[in-house]
Amino acid sequence: MASASSSSPPTLGIAVVGCGIIGSAVADALLNESALFKHRAGVTLQLRHVVEKDTEKALRAKIPQQILSDSIAPVLKDKRTQVVVELIGGLEPARTFVLQALKAGKHVVTANKYLLATHGVEIAEAARKAKRCVQFEASCGGAIPIVAALSESLLANDITRVVGIVNGTCNYILTQMTQHGQTYVAALAGAQAAGFAERDPTFDVNGTDSAHKLAILSSLAFGVEVPLNRIEVTGIDKLSDVDLKFAKEFGYVCKLLAIGEKTDGNLSLRVHPTFVSQDRLLANVHGSFNAISVTGHAAGETTYVGRGAGGKPTSSAVLADIIDIALGTAPLLFGRLPLLIGKPNVNIRFLPGSQVVSRNYLRVTAFDVPGVMAHITNILSRNNISLAGVNQHESKAGHPVPIIITTHESKDGDVSAAIKAIDQLKTITGNTVRIRVLA
Amino acid sequence: MASASSSSPPTLGIAVVGCGIIGSAVADALLNESALFKHRAGVTLQLRHVVEKDTEKALRAKIPQQILSDSIAPVLKDKRTQVVVELIGGLEPARTFVLQALKAGKHVVTANKYLLATHGVEIAEAARKAKRCVQFEASCGGAIPIVAALSESLLANDITRVVGIVNGTCNYILTQMTQHGQTYVAALAGAQAAGFAERDPTFDVNGTDSAHKLAILSSLAFGVEVPLNRIEVTGIDKLSDVDLKFAKEFGYVCKLLAIGEKTDGNLSLRVHPTFVSQDRLLANVHGSFNAISVTGHAAGETTYVGRGAGGKPTSSAVLADIIDIALGTAPLLFGRLPLLIGKPNVNIRFLPGSQVVSRNYLRVTAFDVPGVMAHITNILSRNNISLAGVNQHESKAGHPVPIIITTHESKDGDVSAAIKAIDQLKTITGNTVRIRVLA
Repeated sequence: MASASSSSPPTLGIAVVGCGIIGSAVADALLNESALFKHRAGVTLQLRHVVEKDTEKALRAKIPQQILSDSIAPVLKDKRTQVVVELIGGLEPARTFVLQALKAGKHVVTANKYLLATHGVEIAEAARKAKRCVQFEASCGGAIPIVAALSESLLANDITRVVGIVNGTCNYILTQMTQHGQTYVAALAGAQAAGFAERDPTFDVNGTDSAHKLAILSSLAFGVEVPLNRIEVTGIDKLSDVDLKFAKEFGYVCKLLAIGEKTDGNLSLRVHPTFVSQDRLLANVHGSFNAISVTGHAAGETTYVGRGAGGKPTSSAVLADIIDIALGTAPLLFGRLPLLIGKPNVNIRFLPGSQVVSRNYLRVTAFDVPGVMAHITNILSRNNISLAGVNQHESKAGHPVPIIITTHESKDGDVSAAIKAIDQLKTITGNTVRIRVLA
Repeated sequence: MASASSSSPPTLGIAVVGCGIIGSAVADALLNESALFKHRAGVTLQLRHVVEKDTEKALRAKIPQQILSDSIAPVLKDKRTQVVVELIGGLEPARTFVLQALKAGKHVVTANKYLLATHGVEIAEAARKAKRCVQFEASCGGAIPIVAALSESLLANDITRVVGIVNGTCNYILTQMTQHGQTYVAALAGAQAAGFAERDPTFDVNGTDSAHKLAILSSLAFGVEVPLNRIEVTGIDKLSDVDLKFAKEFGYVCKLLAIGEKTDGNLSLRVHPTFVSQDRLLANVHGSFNAISVTGHAAGETTYVGRGAGGKPTSSAVLADIIDIALGTAPLLFGRLPLLIGKPNVNIRFLPGSQVVSRNYLRVTAFDVPGVMAHITNILSRNNISLAGVNQHESKAGHPVPIIITTHESKDGDVSAAIKAIDQLKTITGNTVRIRVLA
C-alpha cells in the first residue's frame, strides 16, 4: 500500500532534441520559468542539452552555446540527463533517437504523432524493456490534456466513442470558408499567410495528420493497436464552398472530424468532413482550436477544447509530461497501464467501412427534366436508404439544378452503391457529393 | 530516479459511506464492473463496506446485506479497507468521518464540495500528518476531470483565470428560461419535476454551491487558501425573464458563472449571472451540463465540458480517484504537490469587490420624460463609466420604458455608485438591474 510521501523529488536533467517552434518554446520555459515549476509542482527541471542540426537556428532561439550540440551522442552519455524530449517530428531520425534514448535509460517525452501512430507499439515495448516511460500528451490536441483524460481520468469508463477536431489548420480553413464564404483555395492561402498552415500542408488537409492522432486516441480509448490502414480518410482538400453554404442553410457547420466508434465490439475509425448540427458544442469550436469529445458509459459525453498547435500551447503539454516524470507518476502509470499495447484486444473487431452507419448529406446535380427526382428516390429506396429531407431550389430553364438530400442512418456501403447508380443516370451531371452528418 | 515498474498493484479494499444517488452508483460499479477496472487499469477493487444510516434505502439500492452497516466503526477497524469514500454530503458527520478515516490510516475520496470549501485545509493537513491522501475530483464538475487538469496537466502554467458553469441546476433553469421564455419560477418548478433540482434548491440557485466549487478550483489554480467570505456571490433567484430576452436581443446568453481572475497578483473571486457573448463556447453549454475554462500563460484557454451531476457521471470521477489510489499515483501527488494548502500565497492579494473591473448590462426603468437620458448618462460619466451602447425602445404614452445600457470595462464600485444615484432620480421607477457581461 502506497503512502503519501512528502519527500522531495530529485532534480531532473533534460535534453531537448529538435529546436523548432515547439522545441524552442520548451527550452525557453526550462531556461526562464524554473521558479514557476518549483512553486507549482515542487520540482527542479534542468535543461542540460539542446540537440539541433541547424545550430544557427538554435542560437537565434537564444539557446546558450554551452548546452547546444548537433549530435545526440553527448545526451546518451550524460548520466545526469534522465529525460529526452523528442521534438524533431517525422519518422527518422526521431525513431532512432527515441529508441537510443530508451536503451540508454532515459525516459522519453514526444509530441510526434506520426512516429507514435506508426511505431508506437515498438517504442512502448522498448520503453517497457528498459523500465522507462514514454510520455506523449503533446502528440494529440496541443495544450488539451486529452491523453491524461483517456488514460487516467476516464479509466472507470467503457469508452464507446471518441470524436474530435484534431487538426487546427483544417479547422482554421473551414472556419474561414464558413464564416467568410471563402473558397478552399483562398482559405488555404489565408491560413498560410496567417501562419496556421505549413508551406506544404498536404498531411493536414488530406486528413493524414488527423488519422495519426485518431490512431493514438483510439488506442488509448479502446485498448487496441490501430494500424493506420484501418482508418478511412477523406480530407478537406476536395471540399466545395457550395456545400458549406448549404450546410449553413440546413443548420449545420462543416468540420473535419476524426471519429472512433465502438458498437457491440465493432470498431469503426474514420476521418472525414462532417456536417455537425449547429447546436452541438463541436460546431462552435472555431479557428485553429481543437476539441475532442469522449463518450463513456459512466461519464457520458465529456469534451476537451483548446489550442491544438503552436509553440507555447504545445509546450504546456510537453512540460506537464516532464513534470509527471519528475513527480514519479509517469513511470508508475506507464509501467502499470496497458498503454500503446501491441496485443490485439480480442473483444474488438474492426468494422469494414461499408458496414459503418451514418447520416448523410448528398448533393446531386440534375437536369430539371420530368422524372429525375423519381429516379433518384427509387435508387435510394432500393439501397435501403431512407430520406430525412429533400430540397430542390428552382432552376433557371435549361440549367442543371442542385438537389440536396439528407438521409437517416444508412450503411456506408449502401450509400456508395446508391451514389454509383445515381451518377450513371443520364439526367445527372457531374458526381454526387456526399458528406456525413453528425446530428 | 523512479523507473517504470510493471509490478501489479495490490487489491484495494473500499468502503462507501453514504448510499444516496452517487454512493449507490459507485457501489453498483464496484460490485458489477470489476472486470472493466481490471482490464482498463489492471487494478482489483473490492467493495468491503457500505455505510448508510437508512439501511432500507441501501438494500433497495441492492447493497448486499453482509457488507452493509449503519456505523463507520467496522470500517475504521478493518485493516483490509484502505480507502474510505465519503458520499454523505454536508458538513457533519462527513467531516468527523473523514478525519477518523485518515487517522485510522485510510485514504479518503470525497465528492463533498461544501466540506472541502469549508474544512479543506484542516482535512488536507490531517491527511499529510497521516501520510494518506484526499482525492476530490468529483467535488467540482461531476464527470469533468477539472481537478486533474488544474493540479496535474496544467502544472507548467501560471493560471490567470478560471471561469465556469459549475452548477447544473442553475444551467438547466437558465437554459429553459432562455430557450423557452419561461419565468424563473416556472423553470425552477420544471427543473424539480425533471429531477434536475432538489426539493430545497436554495444552495444551488443562490450561488452558494457554485461558490464552494470556485473556492476549491481557485485554491488549485492559484495556490491560495480561499475563505468563502472572499467570494462575492449573486444567485439566479432574482433574475427576470425580461433581462434574458434582452440578452438574446443583444447577442448574449445568460449563464451563472463562477469566476476566479488574477491580474498583477490581485485575485478577484465572484459568482454571478453573466451575459456571455453568443459565440463563446460557454454560451453554447446547455441544460444540466457544466463547463470550466482555464487560462494559463502557456496553454492559453482550455475548456472542459461534461455532466456536472448525476449518480453515474459523478461515479466516473469517484472511481478514477479510487483507481489513482490503487495505481499509487494519488498518494505520490498528494504528498508532493501543494494541494489545499493553508499557508497564504504571499504573491497574491484578494482584490476588494469594488475594484473588480467588468463590462455591464444595466436596465433602468424610466418615465419617458424630457431629460431622463441626459440625467442617466451624466451620472455614468461622473462615475468614470463609459458607455458601449444605449437602447431605448419606444414606449406607450405615460408608461415607464426600459432603457438598456451596456458599459465598457468599469470598476464595480463605480457602477454601484452610479446605480445608487440613478435609482434616486425622480424620473426612474423601480431599481436598476445590473448584470455583468463576459465579452
